[in-house]
Amino acid sequence: MNIAIIGSGVIGGGWAARFLLNGHDVTVYDPAPNAQVALQSLLDNARTSLPALYDRPLPAEGCLRFATSIEDAVSNADWIQESAPERLAIKQSLYAEIQQHAPTHALLASSTSGFTPSQLQQGALRPKQIIVAHPFNPVYLLPLVEVVGSDQTPEEIAQQAVTVIRHLGMHPLRLRTEIEGFIGNRLQEAVWRETLWLIKEGVATTEEIDDAIRYSFGLRWAQMGQFDSYRLAGGEAGLPHFLAQFGPSLQAPLSYLTHVPELDDALIEKISTQSEAQSGHLTQRAMEQTRDQNLIALIRALKQRQTGAGSTVKRHEATLTLPQISELPITATRMIPPSWTDSNGHMNEAHYIEVASNAADTLTQSCGVTDTYIANGMSHFTAETHVRYLAELHEGETVTVTTQVLYAQGKKTHLFHRFYRQDNQLAATVEMMILHVNLKTRQVSEPAPAIAEQLSALALDHRQYPYPEMAGGAIQPQDLSRA
Amino acid sequence: MNIAIIGSGVIGGGWAARFLLNGHDVTVYDPAPNAQVALQSLLDNARTSLPALYDRPLPAEGCLRFATSIEDAVSNADWIQESAPERLAIKQSLYAEIQQHAPTHALLASSTSGFTPSQLQQGALRPKQIIVAHPFNPVYLLPLVEVVGSDQTPEEIAQQAVTVIRHLGMHPLRLRTEIEGFIGNRLQEAVWRETLWLIKEGVATTEEIDDAIRYSFGLRWAQMGQFDSYRLAGGEAGLPHFLAQFGPSLQAPLSYLTHVPELDDALIEKISTQSEAQSGHLTQRAMEQTRDQNLIALIRALKQRQTGAGSTVKRHEATLTLPQISELPITATRMIPPSWTDSNGHMNEAHYIEVASNAADTLTQSCGVTDTYIANGMSHFTAETHVRYLAELHEGETVTVTTQVLYAQGKKTHLFHRFYRQDNQLAATVEMMILHVNLKTRQVSEPAPAIAEQLSALALDHRQYPYPEMAGGAIQPQDLSRA
Repeated sequence: MNIAIIGSGVIGGGWAARFLLNGHDVTVYDPAPNAQVALQSLLDNARTSLPALYDRPLPAEGCLRFATSIEDAVSNADWIQESAPERLAIKQSLYAEIQQHAPTHALLASSTSGFTPSQLQQGALRPKQIIVAHPFNPVYLLPLVEVVGSDQTPEEIAQQAVTVIRHLGMHPLRLRTEIEGFIGNRLQEAVWRETLWLIKEGVATTEEIDDAIRYSFGLRWAQMGQFDSYRLAGGEAGLPHFLAQFGPSLQAPLSYLTHVPELDDALIEKISTQSEAQSGHLTQRAMEQTRDQNLIALIRALKQRQTGAGSTVKRHEATLTLPQISELPITATRMIPPSWTDSNGHMNEAHYIEVASNAADTLTQSCGVTDTYIANGMSHFTAETHVRYLAELHEGETVTVTTQVLYAQGKKTHLFHRFYRQDNQLAATVEMMILHVNLKTRQVSEPAPAIAEQLSALALDHRQYPYPEMAGGAIQPQDLSRA
Repeated sequence: MNIAIIGSGVIGGGWAARFLLNGHDVTVYDPAPNAQVALQSLLDNARTSLPALYDRPLPAEGCLRFATSIEDAVSNADWIQESAPERLAIKQSLYAEIQQHAPTHALLASSTSGFTPSQLQQGALRPKQIIVAHPFNPVYLLPLVEVVGSDQTPEEIAQQAVTVIRHLGMHPLRLRTEIEGFIGNRLQEAVWRETLWLIKEGVATTEEIDDAIRYSFGLRWAQMGQFDSYRLAGGEAGLPHFLAQFGPSLQAPLSYLTHVPELDDALIEKISTQSEAQSGHLTQRAMEQTRDQNLIALIRALKQRQTGAGSTVKRHEATLTLPQISELPITATRMIPPSWTDSNGHMNEAHYIEVASNAADTLTQSCGVTDTYIANGMSHFTAETHVRYLAELHEGETVTVTTQVLYAQGKKTHLFHRFYRQDNQLAATVEMMILHVNLKTRQVSEPAPAIAEQLSALALDHRQYPYPEMAGGAIQPQDLSRA
């Protein structure tokens, strides 16, 4: 797909990153003088972040081009993402120019955080092709996109948007009806208004409010949202109990939100000063990196749990293919996420085994040890592993693993993984003896004949490669008087 | 400390778990007929959850006793935690009875989600000792406790509460002033009111709202809260830019919250039906376990990143001591968290290395390789590891590791870890060669003399134990025609 990005600030730039890193060619138009520099800096963040969510490589990055005019940007576009300033008149006049030059099939998606599709479509050349696709910052990591159409929007246009967004590894939420602020921003706006009061009245500082959120319900909301959390708060009696218990508090003065505070100069000054005290010692870039590394760690944690934003990544990852097999099978290619670094400033030793374990799974899967086979009660356990750490691996680097089957007869399979850095230097070898087991008895058992055959065939094929010198090695005893 | 828990529902029971699992004796009073059964079920959840946050064992669990009366519960108490129904008259009359029988030094902390200390203290025997300590569900996992006093509350009482809460591994947030709903619940109340409107008007279902939260800002709020997130949303221009951009939207109809919806029967029915469709197929217990396992994974992810709720755990963990050294040093004792389980239903092979890596750190730390030493540019890298997996380890089980120093001269240290299950069966052996390195040059280097001496002394001492038969072993080649 050819993508046009109109406006490449924090949001538009995030979209550019999502499309580029998923292999699409992107043309950017942004008249701001520093737009190119800012976008490159944002892309640097995205390039070390988005791939860190995955245990397989993303497609080869698309081409990025800067256009000199709207016409230049959109004349060849299939998808146009508008992230211009939040003023209706600006957006509407942009749309007139965009649709004048864009192909008639091009979909025009707005990142607006509040305007309804009906408002955006007013007076447009092809209103039916204008839709809201509202993402959340940082767009290259957070999966939600609210997809909103008006009564005029044909269902196939909305479905087309949903398909594109899902293909980017994001989570499209199709709204039933158009409403200012959609869902996410209305909820954030409610909290925002309440916090303005708390600060204005001197009840709490920005930092205390942030702590109140991140040490408590923020952790619930990262995985379950509000209603499922409240369902549990009701205890065994569930949500009706909760509603009965907390319903009356709606009449209590628990929220200032019966009226709206004025965001005057004094309040702006108060918030800015407190925020400066809270985080002013950090650069924007450093804070972004901290946020992104935290988000990677959280989303990867949810991925291991196969829930929420983690399942979005997991589903997307299943559509990604490993590079073509050349000589020995490549059983892993992956970027090293920041959360794998230890106090020595390199990939911690445990993650070598994590990668080798996944590589062994990829190899046995290709021979028929699928999720279904495992669900039916058969699998492999590792009996013994020997690792040699030869060169350091660092966050952001890509490691590629080949696996040689040294032996495979019946219950026993003997594997030899080689870890290569980007410069092809050998970073580690991991030798493994894996045993086929029955998951019910937890005993070693014969694999299904088809699987035994395929593993043996692979072992036979791999005899064409030299037997690794490092295989069968032991840690050499140093205290010769004892060993 | 002797703890009295008055009311042992979801919140009171969570407090009971926090105190018990941190080694305090707890006496519970709750007149509900099923209170004991419900509390045991909650404690089962807590026992498999809270220890999973830590890489060291918590203290031996305290004693739990059920009292037959308020007098019986509080007469010996140092800390009384009240989690009775949310009605002011009930709480005030409870306090009269409690303070009549409690020691005069006992602190009475209320879990109220909304009443101010001034309201609670009205008419009390010793009002100065009544304070709010408001936690969040599940109390045994979420760290926040809002500590609120009235104008009457002496600062030393508030500080005493802060100290106890911190000692429980929680995060006390001392409020500057008393206000109904404190901070956390005011913010949740704002979102709650907005979502009631969204559901009443048919804009979204409970499930769509939960998805809108957990796929977007919920992930931000788990780590940074609101203001730091908005600081970043403003781009390089920061928060003032953001305020300028979104200030005008305060006047826009972005929130229904200029008035409050009525939670009438029709709306309760609508919410309950939608929630039933969303999660009615799951039992309360199953949902709680899912939530807890997700929270463990999220908090552990933040712990690795040393931020937010993760740093609270990390700080608490540093105060926990390993059991006394007997014969070979015990270098790890830990519960296996659910997030370490793989598709084979046991601890994944990579985590054996994680445990062994931590065990090696504990051993070298005891010989002087401290955080300061590492910060000064010296550390150990692992050169080679040989694992034998001998018996499975499962989630919730405790594993204990001993480490024998086989050799330690200059740059080289040769370690042999033994992993024991709770039944003392040997679960794995991990042999490791670690090398002392200069972190600047990334080259092998001589350790500081004091460290070399201590490691050598340990190796000499460990010569009294037999050299492990499994040391120096290799994976046996199976294909003898090749090896």
